[in-house]
Amino acid sequence: MTAPLRVAVLGAGTVGREVIRALLDRPGSLRSADGARLELGGVAVRDIARAVAAGIPEALLTDAPAHLVATPETDVVVELMGGDEPARTLIAAALTAGKAVVTANKHVLARHGPELEAIARRTGAALRFEAAVGGGIPVLGPLALDLAANRFEAVRGIVNGTTNFILTAMASEGRAYADVLADAQRAGFAEADPRGDVEGVDAANKLVVLARQAFGRWLEVGSVARMPELVAGGLGAPGITGVTMEDIAAAAARGLAIKLVVSAVWSDDGVISAAALPSAVPLDTPLGRADGVLNRIEVDGVPVGRVAFAGPGAGGPATSSAVLGDLMAVARGAGSTWAGLAAAAGSFIANRPTASETFDAPSGARYPVLR
Amino acid sequence: MTAPLRVAVLGAGTVGREVIRALLDRPGSLRSADGARLELGGVAVRDIARAVAAGIPEALLTDAPAHLVATPETDVVVELMGGDEPARTLIAAALTAGKAVVTANKHVLARHGPELEAIARRTGAALRFEAAVGGGIPVLGPLALDLAANRFEAVRGIVNGTTNFILTAMASEGRAYADVLADAQRAGFAEADPRGDVEGVDAANKLVVLARQAFGRWLEVGSVARMPELVAGGLGAPGITGVTMEDIAAAAARGLAIKLVVSAVWSDDGVISAAALPSAVPLDTPLGRADGVLNRIEVDGVPVGRVAFAGPGAGGPATSSAVLGDLMAVARGAGSTWAGLAAAAGSFIANRPTASETFDAPSGARYPVLR
Repeated sequence: MTAPLRVAVLGAGTVGREVIRALLDRPGSLRSADGARLELGGVAVRDIARAVAAGIPEALLTDAPAHLVATPETDVVVELMGGDEPARTLIAAALTAGKAVVTANKHVLARHGPELEAIARRTGAALRFEAAVGGGIPVLGPLALDLAANRFEAVRGIVNGTTNFILTAMASEGRAYADVLADAQRAGFAEADPRGDVEGVDAANKLVVLARQAFGRWLEVGSVARMPELVAGGLGAPGITGVTMEDIAAAAARGLAIKLVVSAVWSDDGVISAAALPSAVPLDTPLGRADGVLNRIEVDGVPVGRVAFAGPGAGGPATSSAVLGDLMAVARGAGSTWAGLAAAAGSFIANRPTASETFDAPSGARYPVLR
Repeated sequence: MTAPLRVAVLGAGTVGREVIRALLDRPGSLRSADGARLELGGVAVRDIARAVAAGIPEALLTDAPAHLVATPETDVVVELMGGDEPARTLIAAALTAGKAVVTANKHVLARHGPELEAIARRTGAALRFEAAVGGGIPVLGPLALDLAANRFEAVRGIVNGTTNFILTAMASEGRAYADVLADAQRAGFAEADPRGDVEGVDAANKLVVLARQAFGRWLEVGSVARMPELVAGGLGAPGITGVTMEDIAAAAARGLAIKLVVSAVWSDDGVISAAALPSAVPLDTPLGRADGVLNRIEVDGVPVGRVAFAGPGAGGPATSSAVLGDLMAVARGAGSTWAGLAAAAGSFIANRPTASETFDAPSGARYPVLR
């Protein structure tokens, strides 16, 4: 019998609660055949009373995450707080102490990926982050494992459910952006402060993580283009905040859908072009048909060709699948999400892609056309 | 420096030639950062002169595969001969000797999976077979790794490119089965003896391998339903051999496409229903739109929901991606394709699925409708 791995969960939001419930309810099934058993050792939250009300046993709760990370009682840290600090410091502290970390935090990875990867490689601690892109859809692992023999030329996809939900509703119901956004906020599909989603920051973060797996580079997230060009010159409002229902209708008249598409393309001279831009995609393609909160990621590799991954890109249950899968991988000693890939160089500045075809929309935006 | 892993390739057909070329041309890039280097030690073929003419160095060639497997010079065996014997015996011999095996052979796995898994588990040799389903599409690995925390309820998909090519051409060109099949044979999309594909045997083999990963059972391949029910009672011709262009036209008039769909469903009482049947799927769904030689596999898991994998399901380059990825996994010591899953029970008899909705076609076949 191997000693159990004691898991500390930081954050008890939508995903955290699902992970905690699985660890409490299914301790047997979460032990892989040749892995150590996973045991929930503690949960760090900001508001203990609220966590108790949500059904988390009080004996497991603490409001001191740094202590929970540092205690020798913790073997593995699951970081589900999101945001920059204190998440970054806690992840770095765990890895420095040689403790494996599982995180869904694309924000931290996109900004501190090089630092965290360097610490993990130095101490030998595993850093796993399948849940950071595409919710429960397996894509980061397969890029490093099953597809490891490929040279990737491009990766693109729809990776933000909130903006795709808004654009889909604008298109199907002919309603204005602000109106649909307000509805999405009421329904819980958009946050009270929606800027991270609608301005394309979340999508850009995810693209940085995808590019790390596909190209072996940590892109500077600020270099990912998020503002569409304007017909009159210069750049427009970030993400989907400038997309109008007239733009969507005019695109549809040409057989195109406006989607927030992330795209990173590798050129032979080692340049990566990267964008998280509202883009025009043919309505009769899988990307054009990926509606609502579905995510879809496509990779072009040699020799494999184009492979696509699709499914629910958000939500507590779907995302908990990736977090729990990563925990089981840690229990088996499977290492980091980059698996056998070489160490990635950091702070790589991406170029703005040049579109070979554009769609000049009524709002004055010039959207790239991606066929 | 770890000693290189010496690879023996059995078979130099479409896939084998791509694998051999990659091992000869890219020895550096096929070594993962923390894995041993892969070195081509020998290639076993039936016809040495033909292999030399195809550009394989004569010094590597032998027509004695058993000797190549047995020699202490071979560390890893890549079996790409296909078919039952001698593939089964060679794989079993390699695993018995503790040598890792990478294979694309769904025929052998579907018939001898329990025996081969038992040998691999006993000797600790890795058995990897990502290429057996979906060509280069990663699906077997992700089921056992990234999705390991899920309980799977169903797996279905289009996994045979030949039949999908034929059905797509019949639908789009309004031509008869025999006519399209003859064209497909001339174009190299169908074999001279096409029965393995058109009678659904290849698809059933792949379903057995998928079900092993999803449900932890090796199904008895003969229990996978391949003959559609007839309206008049009894069973019709196997696979797509009885599908007429009138059937396809009548289905299209109802918004349905006829596709050879594999499907395995787990019910709570431990029963698995499995079929590789021509089925009616709505034209406006991803399965209904998966045309030509594309493959698409969908899995329904709890908690993840429905995840889909799509891409080129056949062809030398695409399939070599999976074989080479498996070789890199072997070099890293990543174990078998079932990863941490529990040992699978063998010879599990599947039930014939009962369709809740059927389409009575002009030919007299009663196709299940899969929505």
